[in-house]
Amino acid sequence: MVLPNLNIVPFISIDNMMKLVLNVGIDRFLSELADMLEEDFRRWEQFDKTPRIASHSMEGVIELMPTSDGQLYGFKYVNGHPKNTKQGRQTVTAFGVLSDVGNGYPMLISEMTILTALRTAATSALAAKYLARKNARSMAIIGNGAQSEFQARAFKAIMGVDHLRLYDVDMEASLKCQRNLQGSGFTITICESAEEAVEGADIITTVTADKQYATILTDNMVGPGVHINAVGGDCPGKTELHRDILLRSGIFVEYPPQTRIEGEIQQLPEDYPVTELWEVIAGSKPGREGDGQITLFDSVGFAIEDFSALRYVRSKLASTGFFDELDLLADPDEPKDLFGMLLRCEAKAAQVL
Amino acid sequence: MVLPNLNIVPFISIDNMMKLVLNVGIDRFLSELADMLEEDFRRWEQFDKTPRIASHSMEGVIELMPTSDGQLYGFKYVNGHPKNTKQGRQTVTAFGVLSDVGNGYPMLISEMTILTALRTAATSALAAKYLARKNARSMAIIGNGAQSEFQARAFKAIMGVDHLRLYDVDMEASLKCQRNLQGSGFTITICESAEEAVEGADIITTVTADKQYATILTDNMVGPGVHINAVGGDCPGKTELHRDILLRSGIFVEYPPQTRIEGEIQQLPEDYPVTELWEVIAGSKPGREGDGQITLFDSVGFAIEDFSALRYVRSKLASTGFFDELDLLADPDEPKDLFGMLLRCEAKAAQVL
Repeated sequence: MVLPNLNIVPFISIDNMMKLVLNVGIDRFLSELADMLEEDFRRWEQFDKTPRIASHSMEGVIELMPTSDGQLYGFKYVNGHPKNTKQGRQTVTAFGVLSDVGNGYPMLISEMTILTALRTAATSALAAKYLARKNARSMAIIGNGAQSEFQARAFKAIMGVDHLRLYDVDMEASLKCQRNLQGSGFTITICESAEEAVEGADIITTVTADKQYATILTDNMVGPGVHINAVGGDCPGKTELHRDILLRSGIFVEYPPQTRIEGEIQQLPEDYPVTELWEVIAGSKPGREGDGQITLFDSVGFAIEDFSALRYVRSKLASTGFFDELDLLADPDEPKDLFGMLLRCEAKAAQVL
Repeated sequence: MVLPNLNIVPFISIDNMMKLVLNVGIDRFLSELADMLEEDFRRWEQFDKTPRIASHSMEGVIELMPTSDGQLYGFKYVNGHPKNTKQGRQTVTAFGVLSDVGNGYPMLISEMTILTALRTAATSALAAKYLARKNARSMAIIGNGAQSEFQARAFKAIMGVDHLRLYDVDMEASLKCQRNLQGSGFTITICESAEEAVEGADIITTVTADKQYATILTDNMVGPGVHINAVGGDCPGKTELHRDILLRSGIFVEYPPQTRIEGEIQQLPEDYPVTELWEVIAGSKPGREGDGQITLFDSVGFAIEDFSALRYVRSKLASTGFFDELDLLADPDEPKDLFGMLLRCEAKAAQVL
């Protein structure tokens, strides 16, 4: 039996990912992606889970993030190199693969630099939907780099956030963020300090990029009832919040074994109590306990979120057609005859000559 | 500073890999690949090493195999699904990535179904160069599937083996192997049993594909001085040799923590003495101890071998041109402005309309 095109794997390039996102619409893309994330968080227990496999160097880190639900297998390759922007490169680039567990064949290869920004933002907003006060409409964003507009758009699409208070050590970054959000229905205030940015904000998003311990938020800056969306602290030695804030907050995480190594809670004892976000989404644990509680989503990004994102873009391929075909897999006429395929290629080339 | 083509990653498709191999020449490719493997085995201690990350299912396994030498980072995705051939698919397919540790950017994506067959064969022949008797010229190959011709060609190119004794439970496979090796300078005998195949052979290669404990070789079949190249037993629960053979042999392995889980030595106590192949190649441990010793290369395949193979094909790209350009990485005009890239794509599309 010969199946057609067994050699082909659909591939979503940067260009096609942009076209796909724009064709679906940024807000709808973020909302539908959040729905798929919610679906996978609800069935969290069905997944194989393992902390990402990291290869650290002086300059940064390269990670592989695999997971499987028994039917599909997905993994993401992602790097984090803070000094890259000085050479015109991205701090974070990524690509991912979705495969069929039944036969091990890749079914999709996709760029994930843009897709990771979208899934991180959609996950943040999904968490806030469960953890922030229901009437939260204003958000401070501290760190106005590559992630900031995605966060803003996701919080608007999923939470209705329409007031932004932006702060970055580099004001150019804030101005770029403001410019990119023009016409999206936000009231935007550019602030000169983190202190000013958090004033009156219902939600505080921290999304800075330095690979080091930093104190973006000090204890006195965080008032009662605030939801903190801590996105930037995502590897060992990189945190953004003062420890005292953690001690005053209800802490929600994706996958404790990974977050204890990489998240804000690396500052706390190993057995410090945290709640897994999936438990809140599945309804087995409470989320916010009253309007006065400080809630903290200590986000580091987990493989299942990338899996959901790959699953989502795959669901859009047939209807949009934004993909190329990669000749990635060997498909000899007779499966056991891999060497014969090589010989026939040689014979064919000889014929052409 | 804007660098040109930061979005592009060279990609070697199945078709281009075949053209690359044929352009270089199969024998020269295998020899040069063995040279690069030898170079990397010599500097084995410089590499980050970890057992592969496996995701097992009823039907098979999907694995990620990362490693790094501090300058380059490589990983391979590979599946193993023995029932695949019944559906016209490959038991094993693979692809790999080589990256720059300094900035985390992928530098090469390559098919590795064909490349893995070549690297496995080159590694086997390299090991035999150090472990088999110097005058070894005849080899039994038990299991005449997709790997068999690659093994034969590598042993000829690197060791001068020119007598083959083929056996497979499916004689069609042996006939296919014989056909594919026609005109390559081998004297070939097709045998009706494994016992017949090993008669008088200097080297015995076992390369069967069943995912189970099997006894391809029993103790009485292996005479003094033979080198056994055990390639097929490569995951937990899959072995090919009777335990008594192991007890009579000098055992050489790639990376003990992985081989003890996956190789023939999973049948032996955890502390049973084995020699690492790199130590023999680097000259710090002896290889074969006299013409009467039975040597066994218990091969399961290790990430560094894939790293060498990716490094080798990458060295051939510029001179041969057999690659495509994948638009895989985001390259906004301003590195921190990923969202702006999306907006400009939208503006450009609007202009076209």
